[in-house]
Amino acid sequence: VSKAYINQGSQATARRSKLVTSLLSERRLPKDGWDDHSIESFLSEAAMMDSNNFLDNVGVGEREARVYSPLVARRHWNLAHGIGRSGDVAAEQPKAAGSSLLNKLTNLLVADAMRIAGLEDMGPALVLPLATGMTLTLVLLAVKSKRPKTATKVVWCRLDQKTCVKAVLSAGLELVVVSPKLVGDQLCTDLDAVRAAVEAAGPANVCCVVTSTSCFAPRAGDACSDVAKMCAELDVGHVVNNAYGVQATALCKEVTKAWRRGRVDAVVQSTDKNFMVPVGGAVVCSGKGNTEIVDAVRKSYPGRASISPVLDLLITLLSMGSHGWQRCLEDRGDVYGYMRTKLGECVGEFGERLLDTPGNPISIGVSLETHAKLSEDGKDVSFFGSMLFSRCVSGTRVVAPGKRQDVGGVVFDGFGASHDAYPVPYFTAAAALGTTREDVDRFCAQLRKCFKDFRKKAAKRG
Amino acid sequence: VSKAYINQGSQATARRSKLVTSLLSERRLPKDGWDDHSIESFLSEAAMMDSNNFLDNVGVGEREARVYSPLVARRHWNLAHGIGRSGDVAAEQPKAAGSSLLNKLTNLLVADAMRIAGLEDMGPALVLPLATGMTLTLVLLAVKSKRPKTATKVVWCRLDQKTCVKAVLSAGLELVVVSPKLVGDQLCTDLDAVRAAVEAAGPANVCCVVTSTSCFAPRAGDACSDVAKMCAELDVGHVVNNAYGVQATALCKEVTKAWRRGRVDAVVQSTDKNFMVPVGGAVVCSGKGNTEIVDAVRKSYPGRASISPVLDLLITLLSMGSHGWQRCLEDRGDVYGYMRTKLGECVGEFGERLLDTPGNPISIGVSLETHAKLSEDGKDVSFFGSMLFSRCVSGTRVVAPGKRQDVGGVVFDGFGASHDAYPVPYFTAAAALGTTREDVDRFCAQLRKCFKDFRKKAAKRG
Amino acid sequence: VSKAYINQGSQATARRSKLVTSLLSERRLPKDGWDDHSIESFLSEAAMMDSNNFLDNVGVGEREARVYSPLVARRHWNLAHGIGRSGDVAAEQPKAAGSSLLNKLTNLLVADAMRIAGLEDMGPALVLPLATGMTLTLVLLAVKSKRPKTATKVVWCRLDQKTCVKAVLSAGLELVVVSPKLVGDQLCTDLDAVRAAVEAAGPANVCCVVTSTSCFAPRAGDACSDVAKMCAELDVGHVVNNAYGVQATALCKEVTKAWRRGRVDAVVQSTDKNFMVPVGGAVVCSGKGNTEIVDAVRKSYPGRASISPVLDLLITLLSMGSHGWQRCLEDRGDVYGYMRTKLGECVGEFGERLLDTPGNPISIGVSLETHAKLSEDGKDVSFFGSMLFSRCVSGTRVVAPGKRQDVGGVVFDGFGASHDAYPVPYFTAAAALGTTREDVDRFCAQLRKCFKDFRKKAAKRG
Amino acid sequence: VSKAYINQGSQATARRSKLVTSLLSERRLPKDGWDDHSIESFLSEAAMMDSNNFLDNVGVGEREARVYSPLVARRHWNLAHGIGRSGDVAAEQPKAAGSSLLNKLTNLLVADAMRIAGLEDMGPALVLPLATGMTLTLVLLAVKSKRPKTATKVVWCRLDQKTCVKAVLSAGLELVVVSPKLVGDQLCTDLDAVRAAVEAAGPANVCCVVTSTSCFAPRAGDACSDVAKMCAELDVGHVVNNAYGVQATALCKEVTKAWRRGRVDAVVQSTDKNFMVPVGGAVVCSGKGNTEIVDAVRKSYPGRASISPVLDLLITLLSMGSHGWQRCLEDRGDVYGYMRTKLGECVGEFGERLLDTPGNPISIGVSLETHAKLSEDGKDVSFFGSMLFSRCVSGTRVVAPGKRQDVGGVVFDGFGASHDAYPVPYFTAAAALGTTREDVDRFCAQLRKCFKDFRKKAAKRG
Repeated sequence: VSKAYINQGSQATARRSKLVTSLLSERRLPKDGWDDHSIESFLSEAAMMDSNNFLDNVGVGEREARVYSPLVARRHWNLAHGIGRSGDVAAEQPKAAGSSLLNKLTNLLVADAMRIAGLEDMGPALVLPLATGMTLTLVLLAVKSKRPKTATKVVWCRLDQKTCVKAVLSAGLELVVVSPKLVGDQLCTDLDAVRAAVEAAGPANVCCVVTSTSCFAPRAGDACSDVAKMCAELDVGHVVNNAYGVQATALCKEVTKAWRRGRVDAVVQSTDKNFMVPVGGAVVCSGKGNTEIVDAVRKSYPGRASISPVLDLLITLLSMGSHGWQRCLEDRGDVYGYMRTKLGECVGEFGERLLDTPGNPISIGVSLETHAKLSEDGKDVSFFGSMLFSRCVSGTRVVAPGKRQDVGGVVFDGFGASHDAYPVPYFTAAAALGTTREDVDRFCAQLRKCFKDFRKKAAKRG
Repeated sequence: VSKAYINQGSQATARRSKLVTSLLSERRLPKDGWDDHSIESFLSEAAMMDSNNFLDNVGVGEREARVYSPLVARRHWNLAHGIGRSGDVAAEQPKAAGSSLLNKLTNLLVADAMRIAGLEDMGPALVLPLATGMTLTLVLLAVKSKRPKTATKVVWCRLDQKTCVKAVLSAGLELVVVSPKLVGDQLCTDLDAVRAAVEAAGPANVCCVVTSTSCFAPRAGDACSDVAKMCAELDVGHVVNNAYGVQATALCKEVTKAWRRGRVDAVVQSTDKNFMVPVGGAVVCSGKGNTEIVDAVRKSYPGRASISPVLDLLITLLSMGSHGWQRCLEDRGDVYGYMRTKLGECVGEFGERLLDTPGNPISIGVSLETHAKLSEDGKDVSFFGSMLFSRCVSGTRVVAPGKRQDVGGVVFDGFGASHDAYPVPYFTAAAALGTTREDVDRFCAQLRKCFKDFRKKAAKRG
Repeated sequence: VSKAYINQGSQATARRSKLVTSLLSERRLPKDGWDDHSIESFLSEAAMMDSNNFLDNVGVGEREARVYSPLVARRHWNLAHGIGRSGDVAAEQPKAAGSSLLNKLTNLLVADAMRIAGLEDMGPALVLPLATGMTLTLVLLAVKSKRPKTATKVVWCRLDQKTCVKAVLSAGLELVVVSPKLVGDQLCTDLDAVRAAVEAAGPANVCCVVTSTSCFAPRAGDACSDVAKMCAELDVGHVVNNAYGVQATALCKEVTKAWRRGRVDAVVQSTDKNFMVPVGGAVVCSGKGNTEIVDAVRKSYPGRASISPVLDLLITLLSMGSHGWQRCLEDRGDVYGYMRTKLGECVGEFGERLLDTPGNPISIGVSLETHAKLSEDGKDVSFFGSMLFSRCVSGTRVVAPGKRQDVGGVVFDGFGASHDAYPVPYFTAAAALGTTREDVDRFCAQLRKCFKDFRKKAAKRG
Repeated sequence: VSKAYINQGSQATARRSKLVTSLLSERRLPKDGWDDHSIESFLSEAAMMDSNNFLDNVGVGEREARVYSPLVARRHWNLAHGIGRSGDVAAEQPKAAGSSLLNKLTNLLVADAMRIAGLEDMGPALVLPLATGMTLTLVLLAVKSKRPKTATKVVWCRLDQKTCVKAVLSAGLELVVVSPKLVGDQLCTDLDAVRAAVEAAGPANVCCVVTSTSCFAPRAGDACSDVAKMCAELDVGHVVNNAYGVQATALCKEVTKAWRRGRVDAVVQSTDKNFMVPVGGAVVCSGKGNTEIVDAVRKSYPGRASISPVLDLLITLLSMGSHGWQRCLEDRGDVYGYMRTKLGECVGEFGERLLDTPGNPISIGVSLETHAKLSEDGKDVSFFGSMLFSRCVSGTRVVAPGKRQDVGGVVFDGFGASHDAYPVPYFTAAAALGTTREDVDRFCAQLRKCFKDFRKKAAKRG
């Protein structure tokens, strides 16, 4: 092949490999997302630096990252050593320079993405190949190891999902539930009750307070910064469950305020909900002034771990670039507004209304009072959800009052509403990352059909 | 296209889909491994049963398994919901029938594979998307939750890897180390010392005893069945770390004997080392008579988890079939014998010998006494390992006496040897699953070169 | 897994397989494009109907479609038998029902896509795994086989690309070149000259006339319908080279008019330029009233052929759906207008103008008169193209007057311009399928820089 | 990541990229086959040198290798420009340095592979993305272009496959059929008849003689070298159809002898049958002393062509390496012997025998005389083939006497046997590249069942 053409081709190759070198030197999201060709080529190059991919390697250890199935090897770009060592899940593996590099890079890039989303003054981020619940357990164990032996209680601002309860119990800790208080339609952090709970237990017996940012309406995100100040004052730990809060600027700001003004030991967020990857990863972080617990989690993780959720996140972040990521965030905010408007119009036609929850920038509650009265027993609206599901609408959540539920031995009244006796039945819908205006339109269309069917049935019984 | 041809093609399709139906009805390894085409087609079909892949789905929940990057979606065959629910990591997900099916199936197939390997009378197996160490932590937390509050000590038969120590400490438990006893070249379980340790602590203060099967020579696998009887008698828990023991029939037999004759709460094994998948999964099981802890682990796992390690295992098991899996196991046994013979001949030429460790069917120790004397200070042979590594031999482990190491606050003398004062320096090599006779030959060739170089250097120093 | 979930999953699978059955029964583009998951699943299912993928097949023939490399097998979804038989490239293969099905389907779908693009009253379309040039050769050989033995001349309306010349010569035919006539800026079909050429040779000695639709400006697409009428009258063949004309409605209308009003033996179009697939395929078609040559090509194709270009086309068409395809076509028309406007503005700033070529809806000519005068020798502007290429603009074509070129023994004056003496130097740019408004903007930006640089250099020489 | 690990990883990367540089400098098969990771990485790197993959490229030409579907782009590693230019199918494309490089390399590697197979003193090889039949047509057109205008006849040693007949007719040439002569069981080249045919037509009217090497038993490979000498003497062209002959040393030797001793204009071989890739490619070559026709084919190919068959071949050759390729060839020879032995034993049990065809090293004929007598009408055995096919045996070919067939206007008596009146009915089976001993065993097992069933049915009719 003639030199001129090869030169021109080599220049192209050089331009592309500059992508990699500038990524490795800048250690933050590239401005423009990478194309898949560049991403795969980078992963493939990194994989060649792992010992299982060395040409002529003779492996006579117990663990040589042999992969039986070519199908499996291929889906991981031949990365098989996982991440971490016995001593530290973020540590480099001597046999796996490539995997180690990718892991470090992912931690740096996700930190950059979180900074862009609004988490300022953040310390290092730690991606774990564990979903949010299991990560919370690890974080709680780490906090506990730094607290007095007696500190076995976790004071928790009630949020009706099982995960957090399980995470506390799995860590061998005791749960103290603090109910939110009802203000208008909205359920807000009851700061006095939190303080009372800590003081009743005695701070030395309290491992930490757990607050949450993202949640189902009509619950608002917790007043993390107020709780943070209180925890600093009372000298107890404070863990923030920011499960899917990275996607909402308001929640990120509250978290930032919290670690700037008070005590935050660790913040946990899911990778799937915030970055649109498959379930399986979480990020732990904290303010840059207090990175002790993030370090402890990193160092207490026993053994190695899967690189798979790390890879998913890395690919996604490279593919987005900072521009793409910002666009995702902006679009979500925009769709939230659009959903409030359209959904409000839609349900208004049928005598229902949006719950007023200014403290929740993601989830929207819709009253079902009118329809509850039309239901067979005058109150059960729970099958409204399955009516929607059978119309290909997934993710709505109907909450009818009065359900009692046992979660791992802890009993909740009015389960689902995060409150013993929320006054109205309702359902929720969310404008989460990736939701489009088209989704909203199709949702409203299906919703209208449901309301009409509901009324027809009521009329028949009538 | 003419009917005759289509008919013939349809018959072929039918024969292939019979593979799937017979798998789903028999729920054990197919005799012959499946080809990749059949495997991928099955995964793709299952994925279509998850809500994120429904045509026309409108997702308005917080978690709709949206995947940003097509590259990421593709590597997971569009499976994005993960496995498990808040209440149970093996539970079905309403939104993810396909993922749930694959997860259940994997648990059944791996149980079949383990039965074939020699683990008889086994109860249900539980695959976790966590590597061995983290799984041990979860198991220990589950055992602890069933023991008295005071039971915070873990009596552990020393085995010099950091993972197990970390797993105990991360669970917030205390480690009591029991040294093995030296019998000839071999380090064996010191049953009397174990009993003494439990009694000194008081059984009510002991969470469990932890034994190990697979380990580096010259340590032998623990006498699990004797310990199991003792634990039954003393009424304390017993967890077996069978990290890479599934691959060795002798170790599987010992575990079977243990849960038949005594108390075994749970057995933990790695998926990567036993089934040649990338790092990231483990299997928990127990004898069929005592499945309480496996159940507890399943139900205490907080939240969802990655399906990725499950998929790797499923693909691998389908790809092997029972015949392929048996062949892997037999080949490994054969290669172990071959390695002992060839390695014995090789090192004999240079004045060294194999350590006599009949209780270890995987790892082989080779004395370095002669060469230690030739070393600069008359004893340091540690750089022998890096000489081998620079010759593309990975996985050998040189143990020179006298190293002291702190692991998470626990101090070990003679670290590496699992003994305070093992009498000779040595290195280990393993005939692990997937090692071939060709590997052994190439290993011996490189080893000969190393010995010669070592002697040349010694001669120069003269 | 519980029945309810499996049912729901099965319904989803059923909805998806309805895609396939409705495709096979309707035999035209689905309205909405398919997602990749559905496409791959369909291909995989079809492949299972080929004998090389039968479970338990014993192949003892000369050709059993064995594939050595799994990498190769995978990229073709295990389709290895190719298409066609010795007697007919569109015939079914007994051993390959799946491949045969996919091939037939592709021919039907592409016909539908071409109908949508504006080719009305079209007969069957035949996709060949050959690029345009080689397909033209085959078509010419087929036309010749239907003409008298003496008919060895091809009368061709000059269009300065080598392919058509080569196609004629490779078929062993003689080329008679007819120059277009200059009308304003535009080069149009010289009907009188075509008639004169046929009559000079004697119709019995003429195999066919070859006209072209898509071409570089300032040449306009040929007046195919007028030529068609003339060919009918003179009783000579007529082949239309519609290389990349499917993308432009005006050209499709002219072709339709041609086969409605006169004689068109075959129309040839490239798959890569019209459907955005990799180079390697072409489509032959004709009006539904005269399908003899398409049939003859089909039946004269000797032996089997690659399925690869067929697969590329099938995947692309399924992925587009009719809506997606229409959007592509509309976008292209829109971008053409946008390019004329923006490019006109841009070059006007530098004293140049767009050539007036209303008969060419794809390619745009831009005068370089002003700049030619500024060039070193007062006329050579050829390096303007490389200036653009070095600025990452590919595809412009600078034509300076006076180049003489020999193509396979035929000599052309003023080669490049399709005219012996086009009066002005110029360059061309095209608004081809897939070009975006962003491309146009970036192109104009680079162009401005080039003009400025050009002037700077001229000033220096000054 | 620490420097030491990165260094070690970089060394690994360097070792791997040495594979590429040594391939590019040595330009022949690597000794050991490459792993898929290395192959894909090489292809991906090459693709980045094509303009459609340049970062920031602005394409404003008619053909910018845009690919609509990511699925399509991915299966071609983003190579979309195809190969060749209007003037030469092996020419470099300015816009596609990477594709051009891969194409050149494939031509060189396949030449090396053919040399290893036994084709000595060979000139350059030319891979075409056309299957054998279409390639033969191109070759015949090229030969014709170098012969006198009157030379329109092709003298062909009869071989009953339609492809060659079609190839001649498609080229617009006339077929002169010369029957082989029966010697014992075997059908051999009738040299006198070939000479007589050429002389009857007059050498100036003969384009070329076409001989074949690989064929169905009981026909033997043609005496190419004798025909070559005769063609030199008579001054007519000579094309060898070596369709699947590369896999048999004896046939390669005969071809070598032919171009060493006489006239051979071109030799055509299929890529699928000789190298186990999907249908779609062929290789044209000739002795190094006479490369005129290969050059002419290269230069007469009109326009561009698909790179896909070239890629398949390249991947396969890299994956085999010279050692792997030699092993394939040796295994095939071995399986041929094994099949003769086992098949002979098997059919002997049922009163049939192998036909004695020492001149055919691939295909084996088995008499069906005994069974023909048992058939309904005392002679029809044709359904024996479908009995085998319904037992999953593909590729056998039953030839019953007396079939008359019209192929494109040429009529053959006794079609299938390559002889007007072959004395016995028979079937054929082949030991082609990739056939295994296990295939032979399973074939014989099914064959025994067939014979038994056949006899049962005959007995019933009794």
